[in-house]
Amino acid sequence: MSEPTDQTNPDAGQGGQDLYGLTPDLLSAILEALSENDDVRLEALVVPLHAADLADLLEQITSQQRRQVLDVLKPDVDAEVLAYLGEAVLDDVHEILGTGNFAHLVQQLETDDAVDVLEDLDHEVQTEVLAAVPFASRREVEEGLTFPEDSAGRLMRRDVVAVPMFWNIGQTIDYLRASDDLPEDFYEIFIVDPHHRPLGSVPISRILRNKRDVLLESLVEDDEPTTVSATMDQEEVAYIFQQYGLSEMAVTDADGRLLGAITFDDVVDVIGEETEEDVLRLGGVVETDLNDEIITTARKRFLWLFVNLGTAILASSVIGVFEGTLEKIVALAILMPIVASMGGNAGTQTMTVAVRAIATRDLTRANALRVVGKEVVVGLLNGLLFAVVIGFVAWQWFELPLLGVVIGIAMVVNLLIAGLAGALIPLTLQHFKIDPAVAAGVFLTTVTDVVGFFVFLALGAAILL
Amino acid sequence: MSEPTDQTNPDAGQGGQDLYGLTPDLLSAILEALSENDDVRLEALVVPLHAADLADLLEQITSQQRRQVLDVLKPDVDAEVLAYLGEAVLDDVHEILGTGNFAHLVQQLETDDAVDVLEDLDHEVQTEVLAAVPFASRREVEEGLTFPEDSAGRLMRRDVVAVPMFWNIGQTIDYLRASDDLPEDFYEIFIVDPHHRPLGSVPISRILRNKRDVLLESLVEDDEPTTVSATMDQEEVAYIFQQYGLSEMAVTDADGRLLGAITFDDVVDVIGEETEEDVLRLGGVVETDLNDEIITTARKRFLWLFVNLGTAILASSVIGVFEGTLEKIVALAILMPIVASMGGNAGTQTMTVAVRAIATRDLTRANALRVVGKEVVVGLLNGLLFAVVIGFVAWQWFELPLLGVVIGIAMVVNLLIAGLAGALIPLTLQHFKIDPAVAAGVFLTTVTDVVGFFVFLALGAAILL
Repeated sequence: MSEPTDQTNPDAGQGGQDLYGLTPDLLSAILEALSENDDVRLEALVVPLHAADLADLLEQITSQQRRQVLDVLKPDVDAEVLAYLGEAVLDDVHEILGTGNFAHLVQQLETDDAVDVLEDLDHEVQTEVLAAVPFASRREVEEGLTFPEDSAGRLMRRDVVAVPMFWNIGQTIDYLRASDDLPEDFYEIFIVDPHHRPLGSVPISRILRNKRDVLLESLVEDDEPTTVSATMDQEEVAYIFQQYGLSEMAVTDADGRLLGAITFDDVVDVIGEETEEDVLRLGGVVETDLNDEIITTARKRFLWLFVNLGTAILASSVIGVFEGTLEKIVALAILMPIVASMGGNAGTQTMTVAVRAIATRDLTRANALRVVGKEVVVGLLNGLLFAVVIGFVAWQWFELPLLGVVIGIAMVVNLLIAGLAGALIPLTLQHFKIDPAVAAGVFLTTVTDVVGFFVFLALGAAILL
Repeated sequence: MSEPTDQTNPDAGQGGQDLYGLTPDLLSAILEALSENDDVRLEALVVPLHAADLADLLEQITSQQRRQVLDVLKPDVDAEVLAYLGEAVLDDVHEILGTGNFAHLVQQLETDDAVDVLEDLDHEVQTEVLAAVPFASRREVEEGLTFPEDSAGRLMRRDVVAVPMFWNIGQTIDYLRASDDLPEDFYEIFIVDPHHRPLGSVPISRILRNKRDVLLESLVEDDEPTTVSATMDQEEVAYIFQQYGLSEMAVTDADGRLLGAITFDDVVDVIGEETEEDVLRLGGVVETDLNDEIITTARKRFLWLFVNLGTAILASSVIGVFEGTLEKIVALAILMPIVASMGGNAGTQTMTVAVRAIATRDLTRANALRVVGKEVVVGLLNGLLFAVVIGFVAWQWFELPLLGVVIGIAMVVNLLIAGLAGALIPLTLQHFKIDPAVAAGVFLTTVTDVVGFFVFLALGAAILL
């Protein structure tokens, strides 16, 4: 069964590209088998896939192809695949498999994965699937769903290794060997008091490295945080894991009692999601799924474009003020988009840096003033350089030296304002607890368009008329 | 010593915001102590900081404040702080401490961290610091630096736990207890053949869970990759860790022999860096450091703005073609930025989604055609909606019904082209192995500006003149 993988990974281990996972060659072979309805070949190709890779495949093919793949896999499909799927494909897989088969897969998952799958389903489907899961598994999942969306409680698994402070390594190892309900993989052993409140944790490599009579107490990691509250936002959880390079943290309830644990692999996904959200928001896109229906995608994009239409009309109305000037000097109409465009781009550079620095907590009150000042000076410097370039171009193009002066001054002013606005707008939004990534862009282009058009046309009217 | 931390974290463990790290309150207190030259208070505040938090502080304050903080810490400064600093601040810290003290800190670091620090220094300073490090530490670091930048070899630490396949758990634990040069923390035990080539790995929680006489062979993880080559790009390494949720991988040389290991915490940083790079590039910024000199920042931004100036002039020259039309109907000059702006924004939405989907390998040949088709339809749908809105606005504003028709048609065409270009440009760049995040934006706005201005003005000339 491992042959197909070897065959499509001819240079596995040699340091090329795409060594693991769904390589382009493997993908092509699968698409071919699908289009030729060659089920034998298809099975040989998809059965060896890791759940994460199979999920990637299912995300990229059509609903009909998904049915073909699942038909071939049916008895052997790895339940974990579900945990890697996005909302749209998850719904489709539920439809293809039917509620019974789907629930059968869900009950094989660890609690955190099951919660992850169920929270993505529509409320109706969620209830239907839960009803088909046996009581024992259902209760823990339902409990998981009671925590707020995107909270530590949703990320945690319930199984966790917790032992009393006074134990030594020998007692701990004996307990682990005898215990049945340990998590599949764990990285820290939590020390708890008699009320089951975590006091600290010991990385398991330290358990392996020390002799049986060493007390756990002496091995506790003391300069790193151990617990997060179940209601903490996952972004905050991810920050703590990333900041201190942690492998596993205890999750506690309102009384500080141990509820479960979060491991680094869940957090790696969150880190990806949160930065991703910022990239998309800066691009004017709300949370997106490549497999959304066309109408859903169009609707999600509409709002941002609508806001942008408003700001574009505002900018045009500024131009409208200079209708008389434009009638007399049409060169101004031809050149005016250049000033606005350069301002928009320079401002976007500053804004992007500021938004990310705020998100990664590199931009705080300690350096805000200096960063704003620096961006203004950078805007001024580049403004001066581009003023010379565009001034010369405008002069030569329309054989009007004063037109060069007008566009040059407008360029300096707009790039300076772009630097100022690019830094100040995200900081101000952050101050009012509005996500800078969502809103900064609209404000910024409004400022750079309005200032760009106004300064250029007003100067043109004053100097050239 | 722990008082200040408690005091500034009044609700630690209660699930609020900013529970750990450099909280806003703590930062304010430190800035106050700095400005009042209160060294006793400063010491009480900064000594308890974790290395990662201290590094954040050093990144955010001025060079003079850095000197104050380091003076207060001097004997106790945690060497690991260096590993968290960016290039500009690292240079400054080197200058403040002097080469001797700096090298003394470097030699306390694990190899991967020392390599990470040294690769960020200028070649001259690097040589100077290396010369001051004792021979034993120096050799491993110098070896690390021979691997290509951003490769697995640079990320790995040299200490790794490797044992023969035929050992059982008892033998392994006895070896670990007796061994002196184990890494500080480890997560996998690598099984090697007599030539020191990794055959597989066992997560250490499985070692703890099983009895002494169980063979390692029976515990090997078999559906996940174990090794990467030392020359593999860190982006590829990060992909593998993230895709399979791995904790530690072996790094091998060209002959497949074990050289060292990479752990998840190094990779978490890489995942952050790589997505960050994409965000910044989409915003027209090359790799950035908030602490770069003004002139460095201005220079780094210049190139992108220069390219943008070229495309803006190109767009203006399209407008120039219609000089005669604009002279007669100035309303066209007033409205034309709206069409271009909407096209630019709609195209950016599509481009952002496509660039990220390519980076996360969610957009491949399996779904490329469908995604492009979908984006065109989304563009068409939103184009029709906005055509009605802007058509009505233009008609009412200039009391010219036909002007509404002209801008409406131009809007539909430009949003449709924006969807097409927004999806096709990143895919095409990717096909030619050019990073879509760097170049897609320029091409896209050129297309949407040129098409927007041309269609609107050409239709205006044809219908309204």
